[in-house]
Amino acid sequence: MGKLKRNERIASLVKILSDNPNRTFTLSYFSDIFGSAKSTISEDIVLTKQSLEKSNLGKVETITGASGGVKFIPQTTPQKNKEVLEDICNRLKDKDRILPGGFLYMIDVLYSPHLIHSVGEIFASQFNYNEVDYIVTVETKGIPIAFMVAKAMNLPLVILRHENKVTEGSTVSINYISGSSGKIQRMSLSRKAIKPDSKVIIIDDFMKAGGTAKGMYDMMKEFNAEVVGTGVLIATKEPEKKLVNDYIPLLILEKEKLENGDVDINIYPNEDIINI
Amino acid sequence: MGKLKRNERIASLVKILSDNPNRTFTLSYFSDIFGSAKSTISEDIVLTKQSLEKSNLGKVETITGASGGVKFIPQTTPQKNKEVLEDICNRLKDKDRILPGGFLYMIDVLYSPHLIHSVGEIFASQFNYNEVDYIVTVETKGIPIAFMVAKAMNLPLVILRHENKVTEGSTVSINYISGSSGKIQRMSLSRKAIKPDSKVIIIDDFMKAGGTAKGMYDMMKEFNAEVVGTGVLIATKEPEKKLVNDYIPLLILEKEKLENGDVDINIYPNEDIINI
Repeated sequence: MGKLKRNERIASLVKILSDNPNRTFTLSYFSDIFGSAKSTISEDIVLTKQSLEKSNLGKVETITGASGGVKFIPQTTPQKNKEVLEDICNRLKDKDRILPGGFLYMIDVLYSPHLIHSVGEIFASQFNYNEVDYIVTVETKGIPIAFMVAKAMNLPLVILRHENKVTEGSTVSINYISGSSGKIQRMSLSRKAIKPDSKVIIIDDFMKAGGTAKGMYDMMKEFNAEVVGTGVLIATKEPEKKLVNDYIPLLILEKEKLENGDVDINIYPNEDIINI
Repeated sequence: MGKLKRNERIASLVKILSDNPNRTFTLSYFSDIFGSAKSTISEDIVLTKQSLEKSNLGKVETITGASGGVKFIPQTTPQKNKEVLEDICNRLKDKDRILPGGFLYMIDVLYSPHLIHSVGEIFASQFNYNEVDYIVTVETKGIPIAFMVAKAMNLPLVILRHENKVTEGSTVSINYISGSSGKIQRMSLSRKAIKPDSKVIIIDDFMKAGGTAKGMYDMMKEFNAEVVGTGVLIATKEPEKKLVNDYIPLLILEKEKLENGDVDINIYPNEDIINI
């Protein structure tokens, strides 16, 4: 391609950086693809940084030194969190979503790329993941959320399975008790999936009693991995005491059984996430 | 925020557009958040379009008229496809990946946000999805790929489950025969998940005989939905005749049983995707 003008370099810089959050690119990388001097690229990066930060669209961090370079860090504001989370709440409040048994139909929201991209950036803004090695979830409904968190943090995703699979090689399996149903469940993970002494963040779509999250903690112990954070999109208000402590919910769900047997649902953002 | 300069508006435009591929934004939207006249925004958009297209980073499309606006369309080049797919092949060729039974360990690649983001853009460049309503996959390993395709195309994702779940309401279930193992399997889908007379694209991580894809076709018939395209990350070379026709594989896998019982693996990009 021909030599690019400043505007054109900035547009390309933003596209490449924001498609690859938390991935460090060297100045030489951009210098090569744009055919410009490193000093010019340095100036472009300063302008890019200022532009994105002024519009609250995330941070650009430059790292000096031999292994230096530049990376984009997704960062949301409480105001932006409020918009995204209230949008999700409004969609979930629809009475047609209440299923027999009082469950809430929400897979369309959990699998919406547009909404879940924003949810990934919100989670990435809540955790310190500098020393984290993996994002961990359990199949199935939480996978898109966990994957978007992994993408925002530029970390590999690990998915716990309910059954052993031939495509995973030798596995470690544990039993756990689902806190809400009281049923014994099983989860398994390939021995190759997590290196020993890793640090992980657990992400899931939903937490009621916390039995599944507790199961994931137990599995991490089998791999000598430390859980340094837990995030769930939705946590129920009751029971207030869950089987795990220190989890970050983005939304709180309250259910009330009415006299006629129907269920009334209230769902709202976690105040800590949307308050300035 | 204060009034933005042209550079700053372009940086913000690129970030917002590329985070939300195939989503139309009105000029008024940008005019409001940047505090600039629509005519100014129009000029910014022309510059943004030129910049991204010059660097082969995707297309910017403007739609005129009352419901008009601007959207970003991911578009890769054969050269870029070659880089991404050869990178994946090189990772998968590692002999340590061959598991007992001759299976290939590849979940770390399938769950890598960085690689799978690029795979999503490659698939989005292979299909005409103007009239498509959903991306469809089956749990579990293909979900990250399908979700990234859904994100690139801005379409909702639908995930077929192997078991009925209380959180999905009333479901439709079918049995299908896995083409490779010959075993009868079951898949189910919430009746709410797909509107009648929809058009869908099926995405999965792996195809050997095509039994699972055929099962997904059968399920779509139950919903009166039309499959207009099928994409798989990896298809085996043998059997050449699969249970479905018209699928697009990005990579081809050949396995050879050696005399000592070991398995030799060869994996390479689909020529149609990387040739100019």
